[in-house]
Amino acid sequence: MATQLKGSEVTKAMKDKMTAQVEELKERGITPTLAIVRLGEKPDDLAYERGAVKRCESVGVSCKVLEFPEDIREEKLVSEIETLNKDKNIHGILVFRPLPRHINEEKLKAVICPDKDVDCMSPVNIAKVFAGDESGFAPCTPEAVIELIDHFGIPVEGKNVIVIGRSMVVGKPLSMLLLKKNATVTICHTRTRSIQDICKKAEILVAAAGRAKMVNRDFVMPGAVVIDVGINLDENGNLCGDVNFDDVADIAGSITPVPGGVGTVTTSVLVKHVIQAAIKTVGK
Amino acid sequence: MATQLKGSEVTKAMKDKMTAQVEELKERGITPTLAIVRLGEKPDDLAYERGAVKRCESVGVSCKVLEFPEDIREEKLVSEIETLNKDKNIHGILVFRPLPRHINEEKLKAVICPDKDVDCMSPVNIAKVFAGDESGFAPCTPEAVIELIDHFGIPVEGKNVIVIGRSMVVGKPLSMLLLKKNATVTICHTRTRSIQDICKKAEILVAAAGRAKMVNRDFVMPGAVVIDVGINLDENGNLCGDVNFDDVADIAGSITPVPGGVGTVTTSVLVKHVIQAAIKTVGK
Repeated sequence: MATQLKGSEVTKAMKDKMTAQVEELKERGITPTLAIVRLGEKPDDLAYERGAVKRCESVGVSCKVLEFPEDIREEKLVSEIETLNKDKNIHGILVFRPLPRHINEEKLKAVICPDKDVDCMSPVNIAKVFAGDESGFAPCTPEAVIELIDHFGIPVEGKNVIVIGRSMVVGKPLSMLLLKKNATVTICHTRTRSIQDICKKAEILVAAAGRAKMVNRDFVMPGAVVIDVGINLDENGNLCGDVNFDDVADIAGSITPVPGGVGTVTTSVLVKHVIQAAIKTVGK
Repeated sequence: MATQLKGSEVTKAMKDKMTAQVEELKERGITPTLAIVRLGEKPDDLAYERGAVKRCESVGVSCKVLEFPEDIREEKLVSEIETLNKDKNIHGILVFRPLPRHINEEKLKAVICPDKDVDCMSPVNIAKVFAGDESGFAPCTPEAVIELIDHFGIPVEGKNVIVIGRSMVVGKPLSMLLLKKNATVTICHTRTRSIQDICKKAEILVAAAGRAKMVNRDFVMPGAVVIDVGINLDENGNLCGDVNFDDVADIAGSITPVPGGVGTVTTSVLVKHVIQAAIKTVGK
């Protein structure tokens, strides 16, 4: 039976470290603060916001939620972001996406200050992830996978790692982060032929396809590490990953559960970025 | 014996198309113009410049070479780029790199106007290549590989493509361009284990490692397409690729020679970008 790689173990270790970092910052008179920019009241946004605020507060990071009507004028939104860019008491900015259609997302991406862009919206940070330059901020979910891999001491260098999915939210940036750790990375997707045969060669298999339970035991080499980034609803309306956990559990060496795996770590990475952004302002 | 995929056939077809496009632009009063910014007189820069100027002129594109002393002050260089950004008669800007150490390349990357950034220096264009957004400019060499693949009608969709090399000049951007064409892409590098075994599964094998003749017949599946992006000097001081051509030629299905392969196409892609940049200004 596969070992379960539980997100809660990762977040606990991160929490201890982050609490200490925030205490040190506060002694210097800095309270790391995240500004959350939300347009309207989409249930997904509100749920993520609640989690983020709670996780921030649990380590002493402040949150400031700026709610605007969904039909806010683009110029107004741009000027609000510019105000946050200049505000020395704000260290991180999170803008919920997707944005309403009348807002030009390209334009907004160029406005947000890269040093405060804790969710990797700016092309500057995206280009850095691509280049393997760790001085910027990677998107939170792929970095959560790396946190989990590091926490459990899973060796990556020289390993055959296969990522299913090529989104800009997970698949592509994660592939770059794994490449930076010297994995040999293969990116699979909907047009990949004989995907089972390919995935069966993975020492580490990452499912980030967004398709409920698509990865069954035919995809998994005995003993492989299986990391499930999917968050879907199954036929009974229950949360499930991209991996058919029950089918894979007795063949994989280790596996992340859904819920309780990577998703749990994502919010902690967001908080970590806010603290990192605050640390960078020390002495400035 | 493998079919040779000759760069000259690709550049010939590109030339005919580009000549027609330039004629059309000139009828509208627009002469596509490339500004080349060179610091000092490095032989590599001068050689590339001669080739670029010649290739531009062969299709009617103008070139303006701006030569500055190697010890130019950063602010001066920034202001020169800003002047080019504003100049309506300049459509593309090429800055030779690497820059001298006293120049902050990060800063310069942020200055160059993405719409004129024909060699993919700006994070905006780098992020677009990563995202698979074709509205920007990719780096010239990886796009030359795509031009070559397209010209010879080599099917890519669903194919197992292996790229050896993970540089930001070739390996990584090329992997993204191939992914955009729906290949299943594996990125190998110096830390990859059993690299021969992995490469032997490639239907299309791209060598962009920068190591003379490292790819021999043990890397190649019979009938595979082998694309050699390397430009090295062999033990006798002769130009050679990353592929041991003679060793591979009777096992590969087709293969690009060095010289005379991908490298030949790179300059034509640069010219193509200048023309594209000029076309985008029509009606503005």
